[in-house]
Amino acid sequence: MPYVNIKITREGVTAEKKAELIQGVTKLLQDTLGKNPQTTVVVIDEVDTDNWGIGGETVTVRRKQGL
Amino acid sequence: MPYVNIKITREGVTAEKKAELIQGVTKLLQDTLGKNPQTTVVVIDEVDTDNWGIGGETVTVRRKQGL
Amino acid sequence: MPYVNIKITREGVTAEKKAELIQGVTKLLQDTLGKNPQTTVVVIDEVDTDNWGIGGETVTVRRKQGL
Amino acid sequence: MPYVNIKITREGVTAEKKAELIQGVTKLLQDTLGKNPQTTVVVIDEVDTDNWGIGGETVTVRRKQGL
Amino acid sequence: MPYVNIKITREGVTAEKKAELIQGVTKLLQDTLGKNPQTTVVVIDEVDTDNWGIGGETVTVRRKQGL
Amino acid sequence: MPYVNIKITREGVTAEKKAELIQGVTKLLQDTLGKNPQTTVVVIDEVDTDNWGIGGETVTVRRKQGL
Repeated sequence: MPYVNIKITREGVTAEKKAELIQGVTKLLQDTLGKNPQTTVVVIDEVDTDNWGIGGETVTVRRKQGL
Repeated sequence: MPYVNIKITREGVTAEKKAELIQGVTKLLQDTLGKNPQTTVVVIDEVDTDNWGIGGETVTVRRKQGL
Repeated sequence: MPYVNIKITREGVTAEKKAELIQGVTKLLQDTLGKNPQTTVVVIDEVDTDNWGIGGETVTVRRKQGL
Repeated sequence: MPYVNIKITREGVTAEKKAELIQGVTKLLQDTLGKNPQTTVVVIDEVDTDNWGIGGETVTVRRKQGL
Repeated sequence: MPYVNIKITREGVTAEKKAELIQGVTKLLQDTLGKNPQTTVVVIDEVDTDNWGIGGETVTVRRKQGL
Repeated sequence: MPYVNIKITREGVTAEKKAELIQGVTKLLQDTLGKNPQTTVVVIDEVDTDNWGIGGETVTVRRKQGL
């Protein structure tokens, strides 16, 4: 019954990679905590790099700096 | 003063249906808990079916299986 | 399959009221959007009045002012 | 190490204003709580006015009423 | 730089299990999407069974039914 | 009308500091984006150090290492 929300920057992750991530986190919750995979919900939010900040700067700015 | 976040898959819900949902949940909080509707905030997030997983699979895959 | 998160201030809501709220919001999503109630998840967060602000003030302060 | 999520309506905020907001909230957490700005994460969600409700109405409807 | 929020019911998960979950999800994001583990943030919320609903019922009620 | 959620580790922040943070972030949204402070909502979540991970480790472990 767990609910997992994963936020990542929107930088071209494929549907296949997202499916792999959903499968992996569902299995991890089963293996670690014994949670039923049938009722595990995973929601991935992809966030524009202008809207994500770390260290007081947007990721857009950091990418231009090669970070 | 409640804050409600509703996450649903992005599958063509109309603006009218979303308005109805916002009205309904605001009224429910008033009727059930006596909350002031004027300060009740409701935010609906529509999530791509590639980004929503249940049972370890994306909703995109489940829709193809008729689920 | 919807996921609903309801945040309210922690001010003595009973388990019965919370159960009523969960039932109500699940039914509302079924009636409004045709969502399957069996997979609708509702999570209620109760937040201390010191940790909730509106209008730049905490709810603790507002309660003392009779708001 | 704080994580801040800011939800606003999607009404044309520029990248510059978002960068300013990220910088400001990061500095505020440093000044108020002594948090390390290098590990402060800020995520801004811009929400369609059809998907944001207050007072039981969508912001789309309120904007038409001049609110 | 990903941010992951995991919500589970509060039913006695140990600190060791939570550490294992944090390690696992951080590694998964590195292996699947190439994310830098040093800046991956994971927050676990443990929610009272009275405050978690599925199928229109609280988990408290479901646990009494052996679900 | 913005909604701000701030997550910090639960490490003894006083009610006064939380009130200052709420006031500051409300003012910042007014100054930066012209948002009405009367309808700005701020919710602070304090998270146990066992439940917060960064770099694949819990904050509890990192605090013991002097990080």
